[in-house]
Amino acid sequence: MRKVYLDNAAATKTDPRVVEAMVPYLSEIYGNPASLHQWGEAAKEDINEARAKVAALIGARPEEIIFTSSGSESNNLAIKGLAAARAKKGKHIVVSAVEHFSVLQAAKRLATAGWDVTMVPVDENGLVDPSVVIAALRDDTVLVSIMHANGEIGTIQPIAAIAEPVRARGIAFHTDAVASAGTIPVNVDELGVDALSLAANQFYGPKGAAALYVRHGVRVTPLIDGGIQEDGRRAGTENVAGIIGMGKAAELSGAEMGTRAAKIAPLRDRLVAGLLGAMEHTRLNGHPTMRLPGNAHIGIEYIEGESMLIMLDMAGVAAASGSACTSRALKASHVLAACGVPPEKIHGSLLFSFGKENDEADVDYVIEVLPPIVARLRAMSPFAGEPG
Amino acid sequence: MRKVYLDNAAATKTDPRVVEAMVPYLSEIYGNPASLHQWGEAAKEDINEARAKVAALIGARPEEIIFTSSGSESNNLAIKGLAAARAKKGKHIVVSAVEHFSVLQAAKRLATAGWDVTMVPVDENGLVDPSVVIAALRDDTVLVSIMHANGEIGTIQPIAAIAEPVRARGIAFHTDAVASAGTIPVNVDELGVDALSLAANQFYGPKGAAALYVRHGVRVTPLIDGGIQEDGRRAGTENVAGIIGMGKAAELSGAEMGTRAAKIAPLRDRLVAGLLGAMEHTRLNGHPTMRLPGNAHIGIEYIEGESMLIMLDMAGVAAASGSACTSRALKASHVLAACGVPPEKIHGSLLFSFGKENDEADVDYVIEVLPPIVARLRAMSPFAGEPG
Repeated sequence: MRKVYLDNAAATKTDPRVVEAMVPYLSEIYGNPASLHQWGEAAKEDINEARAKVAALIGARPEEIIFTSSGSESNNLAIKGLAAARAKKGKHIVVSAVEHFSVLQAAKRLATAGWDVTMVPVDENGLVDPSVVIAALRDDTVLVSIMHANGEIGTIQPIAAIAEPVRARGIAFHTDAVASAGTIPVNVDELGVDALSLAANQFYGPKGAAALYVRHGVRVTPLIDGGIQEDGRRAGTENVAGIIGMGKAAELSGAEMGTRAAKIAPLRDRLVAGLLGAMEHTRLNGHPTMRLPGNAHIGIEYIEGESMLIMLDMAGVAAASGSACTSRALKASHVLAACGVPPEKIHGSLLFSFGKENDEADVDYVIEVLPPIVARLRAMSPFAGEPG
Repeated sequence: MRKVYLDNAAATKTDPRVVEAMVPYLSEIYGNPASLHQWGEAAKEDINEARAKVAALIGARPEEIIFTSSGSESNNLAIKGLAAARAKKGKHIVVSAVEHFSVLQAAKRLATAGWDVTMVPVDENGLVDPSVVIAALRDDTVLVSIMHANGEIGTIQPIAAIAEPVRARGIAFHTDAVASAGTIPVNVDELGVDALSLAANQFYGPKGAAALYVRHGVRVTPLIDGGIQEDGRRAGTENVAGIIGMGKAAELSGAEMGTRAAKIAPLRDRLVAGLLGAMEHTRLNGHPTMRLPGNAHIGIEYIEGESMLIMLDMAGVAAASGSACTSRALKASHVLAACGVPPEKIHGSLLFSFGKENDEADVDYVIEVLPPIVARLRAMSPFAGEPG
């Protein structure tokens, strides 16, 4: 049976060139980067080379990169760390309703500690209105966090337009760019942000390696206190191999993201057109044009998403219903709910996310196998008869 | 020139069998463990197998293991997370003066948030007196954290004797076993602890993979909020390859730690005897018998430790002066200070930490090269003349 992996939003396959770069750091180059001898110095220098590569991917300076272990850790460090460093100025933060759970739950954690959290809404395409963010600002607002692109529905936010007036008021601005960095051009100065999260695993780098960009001069309270690693902003012996892999992945993605997107977007469009043409009561969720090149989030009415996923899996196809981080909780997507999708329609959603390994045959296979699955499930569903 | 690596306390060389186990998870097996398809299930199952192996190393149940990214993260999660979950009961915690910086700085972070922190002293060998810990307990004490073994001076604490009366009062007990787990037998029930930190990189596993054991039923507030990973106690896509490597390293260490220690301890003793015999004004720091098998912490008077390290490095020998996590800060060791070593003697300390790759020739080489280095440096030092 054909195997078709269309869950690149959950995890990309590490590029073989990245794996090759990492392996020496699992074996021969094993010194602790903090150690004052040649074993340590070798690791330290190579980490800093990786730091420069990650910085280059987003137009930052090397010393503005804090390596972390996941996009979720980066987001927690941003939300909790930027807020804590500003607690004396005020205890109000603003996030959007479609943020990743690591931002929303970090904000919720602050709320239990006495902070006020304002959640700004989005429109039916998942877009945040800059004027709504500005209207939410208060005298005690110290942090705004609006994601760059949504990994679930693919919508790309107008971050520059939102960040500029926020920062003009002296309020720190963070963007979760985990779904976009390495995939589309991301530049911290063009976006005009104080902090930005990114994760290697989203751009063919390894799991366990991520980073938080923090603009020079912007204070952040550590989440992990202790040693002097990452300039005192994140203690703990570095995941050297992971960091080297992230550096290599950043270098490759910076050079290749244009050609990758030029290959991927037409595949995505072919899938969307094919599925929407083959099945009634289906639609594309998220913004029609301001979206990630590899994201196809299809709403399929009168059906349960989980059943579709299981049957697709049996047919050799990997897809998702929403964010991997919440998939096993089987909760209704907060992102679709925020877009105004009614609960009964949320459950019938499928996320196909493309990567550089996919081809037309993958697309055609999904267009071949999914419609019969949907027809079969609809015939069995409690909504049976409705779609006609 | 001979290369002699005697800084295994900072980082061990990953076992080739561990690297071999990891590599497939950097390439073919790339699914996100949270994903609901065969790519995700494969990763999920293998992570849980690794979880069982790590649990077995310390006599725990698999569901009591929370994977983290470093020993420092485990310690921060323990100190901040166990404290936060008990804040309504009281805001007093007890730690020892010789804890790792990740424990001490996490405690300091709590102190800035209004907690009371009592630091109990140690004797000249670095030992904590159980009765002193008991005397420090108050009605509002909610957490005690005393390390199992000190990575710097090697002293092993009588944890069972300290933990039992603490837990009998309903107070949570955490031990930092980063320096001991995988090296000497560690059993959470025999030690009688609620939480225990360990790190793969200390027992021939990869950097970037560590764990916090939390006893079933013991509440801990997450440091990283978000997704459902690690049973909701630590969000973020898992470092799958690192976790698989930690599992393999735990399995190997459980089986081999006895033979490793039987090889290493005599080498350590040979080095200590050789150096103390060859140089005047030297001593072994830490406890004479209750110490890690690979730890030789030598106090060398009338000399600067950093200069010795640099000259040893030039001679091909990797050693340390204390904890790698603070080495670049070039601060006087808080551990030696807590043992009552006067400031002028603290700076002349060398930590040689053995691993399973070391042999007698390594020892003899150090015994050959170090005394002339010391003689040369003493001749140049401001204390010159004093040692006679």
